[in-house]
Amino acid sequence: MIKAVFFDLDDTLVDTSKLAEMARRNAVENMIRHGLPVDFETAYGELLELINEYGSNFSRHFDYLLRRLDLPNNPKWVAAGVVAYHNTKFAYLKTVHGARRLLLELKKADYRLGIITDGDPIKQWEKIIRLDLDDYFDGVFISDYLGVKKPHPKIFKKALRKMNVKAEEAVMVGDRLYSDIYGAKRVGMNTIWFRYGKYADRELEYLDHADFTVERLEDVLNIVGGLNLEEEERSDKEVHAD
Amino acid sequence: MIKAVFFDLDDTLVDTSKLAEMARRNAVENMIRHGLPVDFETAYGELLELINEYGSNFSRHFDYLLRRLDLPNNPKWVAAGVVAYHNTKFAYLKTVHGARRLLLELKKADYRLGIITDGDPIKQWEKIIRLDLDDYFDGVFISDYLGVKKPHPKIFKKALRKMNVKAEEAVMVGDRLYSDIYGAKRVGMNTIWFRYGKYADRELEYLDHADFTVERLEDVLNIVGGLNLEEEERSDKEVHAD
Repeated sequence: MIKAVFFDLDDTLVDTSKLAEMARRNAVENMIRHGLPVDFETAYGELLELINEYGSNFSRHFDYLLRRLDLPNNPKWVAAGVVAYHNTKFAYLKTVHGARRLLLELKKADYRLGIITDGDPIKQWEKIIRLDLDDYFDGVFISDYLGVKKPHPKIFKKALRKMNVKAEEAVMVGDRLYSDIYGAKRVGMNTIWFRYGKYADRELEYLDHADFTVERLEDVLNIVGGLNLEEEERSDKEVHAD
Repeated sequence: MIKAVFFDLDDTLVDTSKLAEMARRNAVENMIRHGLPVDFETAYGELLELINEYGSNFSRHFDYLLRRLDLPNNPKWVAAGVVAYHNTKFAYLKTVHGARRLLLELKKADYRLGIITDGDPIKQWEKIIRLDLDDYFDGVFISDYLGVKKPHPKIFKKALRKMNVKAEEAVMVGDRLYSDIYGAKRVGMNTIWFRYGKYADRELEYLDHADFTVERLEDVLNIVGGLNLEEEERSDKEVHAD
């Protein structure tokens, strides 16, 4: 009997990668508009390389971009990038298509809902609060707060214990085959891989750990309902077999 | 002959203090809305004390606020504060009443315009860019970029040199008697104290350094015009005296 559904946050409930791409493009455009003497493709390409190398703490990216382009330090250009980046992030932060309806349907059907996500606790909560998602969830479990990251079994076990459900009573939905699906399956949870975004064709060596694969979040509802139906039929049979 | 007018940024062109107060109030309200178990007056009072002690780097303020209130670390409450603070700052960032019209009139009358401000270069440029003020200015001089702060003569001298005007050909307009007015007067500039905001009754020991005091930015135009008229009359007399 499924009692709880857990979700990853970035690129599962929140359209993070798409947003980051828009924000970066707008940042480079605004830097050029304010005088950065480089064409868009050169600057944007360099920024992507830089993010690949240094990770995603954005505020230093624009400083570093100038250095990489052999340009002088210019706080006006950096500020132009920061302003456009922030404006885009705040204006276009969106849930993934179908996410809110799915959460509502699951809530109506009385499932307990949780989030299990990696990342900075304040930044993750910022997204949840900006999107007004917090009322849907009975528990939010964030790696940098708990001191353990997906796919380590401990973060899934902590979430299950706090939500008072057994692993086999829980489903994990996420876009990453490694951290979400392999991680959840190792502790015995049911797993639904949301094949979406930049990880749609990556980490396929962990595909075996996905019980189901969906390309639209809406399908999660049917799968969860189906798992419970199977369970009912099985227990009906057991009753009849008595 | 006045050729250039320099402005301070915060609380002279940009309504920074009023905005910061709104942002802090909204932050505390949103933290309470998301479960912070403290009444508004207690939390807001504690936040103001904390800002007094630690200065204005906001992101750690909300963490520290929880510690001061003997509450557990809770990233959800911190994020609620950060979201409301940011939203307010971006939505309500405004120029001081009359600032834009004054800049336009000065520009029409062919004065060179500059900004001389203390603070972080990127954050100061962010405000200038968000308010679309950059096209008005021929030079922007920011202390943390130049390595020297107001009221040190060097920052004023650098600004005058870059804008190619002599001190007596320039006017400085600012809300701080110490950093703006005393600073500018020491290098020989004309000074207009904008008596506005939280410094309206402070640093009065430097009042002697103000050539003029205005309570509305609009009045700057008449004063600058008047200074040039005096100058013309004086040179007329000199001509007649020949």
